[in-house]
Amino acid sequence: MKKISVLAAAALSLAAVSANAQVKDDFIPSETVQHGKQFPAVNSEKCVRVKVNAPDAKSVQLDLGGKKYDLVKGEDGSWVGESGPQDEGFHYYNIVIDGAVVPDPTARYFYGSSHWTSGVEVPAYDGDFFAVKNVPQGQIREIYYWSEVTQAMRHCFVYTPAEYEYSYTKRYPVLYIQHGGGENEYGWAQQGKTAQIMDNLIAERMAVPFIVVMECSDASLPGAQAGRPQGRPQGGAPEGRPQGGMGGFDMSAMFATYDRVMAEDLIPYIDRNFRTVADNAHRAMAGLSMGGMCTKAITLNHPELFSNIGIFSGGTITVQDADITPGFRQTNKLVFVGFGSRELENRVPGFGDGTDPKEETEDVKASGVNAHFYVSPDTAHEWLTWRRCLYQFAQLLFR
Amino acid sequence: MKKISVLAAAALSLAAVSANAQVKDDFIPSETVQHGKQFPAVNSEKCVRVKVNAPDAKSVQLDLGGKKYDLVKGEDGSWVGESGPQDEGFHYYNIVIDGAVVPDPTARYFYGSSHWTSGVEVPAYDGDFFAVKNVPQGQIREIYYWSEVTQAMRHCFVYTPAEYEYSYTKRYPVLYIQHGGGENEYGWAQQGKTAQIMDNLIAERMAVPFIVVMECSDASLPGAQAGRPQGRPQGGAPEGRPQGGMGGFDMSAMFATYDRVMAEDLIPYIDRNFRTVADNAHRAMAGLSMGGMCTKAITLNHPELFSNIGIFSGGTITVQDADITPGFRQTNKLVFVGFGSRELENRVPGFGDGTDPKEETEDVKASGVNAHFYVSPDTAHEWLTWRRCLYQFAQLLFR
Repeated sequence: MKKISVLAAAALSLAAVSANAQVKDDFIPSETVQHGKQFPAVNSEKCVRVKVNAPDAKSVQLDLGGKKYDLVKGEDGSWVGESGPQDEGFHYYNIVIDGAVVPDPTARYFYGSSHWTSGVEVPAYDGDFFAVKNVPQGQIREIYYWSEVTQAMRHCFVYTPAEYEYSYTKRYPVLYIQHGGGENEYGWAQQGKTAQIMDNLIAERMAVPFIVVMECSDASLPGAQAGRPQGRPQGGAPEGRPQGGMGGFDMSAMFATYDRVMAEDLIPYIDRNFRTVADNAHRAMAGLSMGGMCTKAITLNHPELFSNIGIFSGGTITVQDADITPGFRQTNKLVFVGFGSRELENRVPGFGDGTDPKEETEDVKASGVNAHFYVSPDTAHEWLTWRRCLYQFAQLLFR
Repeated sequence: MKKISVLAAAALSLAAVSANAQVKDDFIPSETVQHGKQFPAVNSEKCVRVKVNAPDAKSVQLDLGGKKYDLVKGEDGSWVGESGPQDEGFHYYNIVIDGAVVPDPTARYFYGSSHWTSGVEVPAYDGDFFAVKNVPQGQIREIYYWSEVTQAMRHCFVYTPAEYEYSYTKRYPVLYIQHGGGENEYGWAQQGKTAQIMDNLIAERMAVPFIVVMECSDASLPGAQAGRPQGRPQGGAPEGRPQGGMGGFDMSAMFATYDRVMAEDLIPYIDRNFRTVADNAHRAMAGLSMGGMCTKAITLNHPELFSNIGIFSGGTITVQDADITPGFRQTNKLVFVGFGSRELENRVPGFGDGTDPKEETEDVKASGVNAHFYVSPDTAHEWLTWRRCLYQFAQLLFR
């Protein structure tokens, strides 16, 4: 009750600054506001309002979802304005002040589009599955480890379930999970809500407890030009086609160094320093978008390491993949393919290798693979799709 | 060698954008740049250069160390400029674009001055003690826990030493360490470099392994107005005096709710979920600035919980404190007081309760307390002072 009255008071106060009579004035601060701040805020029509103090600026815009919305200057020197309705879930955005693209000074920051930028959370009807709740809490652990392959210290996050702290003899399966293009190892730890999704599933006994490792697929051999993948891979799907497309480039070459980091450094490090079940039956890899392509490249290259595969908005495993990959049909235990419904609706002819991912998944299932296809309702190529994919995938894993 | 040549190439490339002939053109990207970015950069004279793309702006400034430096617009629409020489260590800063105070779009972000803002690291002559090195690596664990006192989930970070992962029966002492005014639980985990300082000390056998808990002292009872302390406490030291001053306000009232959170929720949670030695001899509390005052208030209120005290730029423990606090002289094992040399140089008459912190510490030592006084060379009220304080304090703890 207390919480509701605080939110109601906040909505009243936000109403006072409305700059647009057509916008429904029931804005509530997004969960991504900085402590004590009120913007970005979201109304019941899923519009996002921002407020930026820029007394001497000529122009201030909200840059969200591929559109720029002009803000209006008020008497106090602050610029206020709203986006159109957004899909539910998490969205990156920028503020543009006289041509300068900057983070919103009152929002929390997240890594996407190859920089740290603002994020806003549009409440989802099913948001309970990734909410922070008073259930036994796992931990996200920040770790540096030495890579012989890259000859450098590398940085990753590891989720451990709540019971890991006191089950001193029990060993756990491990999921390695990858971010998308222009993102990094912070993606699943922050906007991905991995800890909340896992804690809530485990508390409800809907998933078996397992470890989740979040690393960045950017990796360069010593002496090579450093540089993280910027958005879609070179030579990838043509402009205008979904980022999940996979046709026309050599995935195994693109992820060759990270493949070696995983096989030679990361997996051995995790198996030495955590109580893991260190075999392929108890090891999974999954990823979103470019991370799904990375997952496909590395898991098909290493059936001896991975028996469980998740691809979120990043292609499929085909009958041909299953047939030509040595050891795949003997060792694979699970293939999960997920997309947002809007990605499938917007699919243009020639998407990926020219086939339908649902049909491909049904075909590979008919050929004997334990394959699952999932569609996230009313979401596009964005984080709510991938949170839901993890939520579904985790329930199938290591059973 | 490889790293040196990369840095040299970067310095050459940065030289090309110089806007000020008087500034020495050997800038190297700060460790706080975003991946693949080149600014903020620092030269051998410890000046900080930034570059901000703002093609339509009328004015862009660098706001660093209490001064605003005008940037100069180049032909490419980017604004470039430098600060004067800075002290070594970590500094918060902002960019001001036509009156709008925003984070630097190419820097990493840190929480200080009650918002997420940019940070720059000016290399320190002794920076090796907080560098990421290939030594056994501890972990920073992100944790949510339920507070009965505030009736809410709370957020903290916990450092565990490398050996914690495999020493299944060993139990460890715990240090609770507090941020300063306008900061939060991220301070010691990020700009404080707690994991690196501890890992390096433990690897050199200069400190015994212990756990470090980083929480935020902002805490409100259910129904109370929420709000983190904003800068110096109300009723605190007069303007123009060091923030470390302690005269004139009731510390125990200011930190009363956090005192209860620690005693009733946080310490029991840590003792239940980590392998701690759960007694006052093996428990310490320390803090910087306002966090030092918080430490003093809570440790003097709870000699049954804490036998070890660290106060960094936040006052002292006096003979009177030791005399009037029931149980203090029986249980206290260590008092550590540290300041930056520039804080002491700039000390004005009437600082705190009107006495000299070094004299106070010597007096309390002469009265029988195991007290230590430390001065960080050539630093002010900033993070390098506090990193050095932790480095010194940790070597004395739990011996």
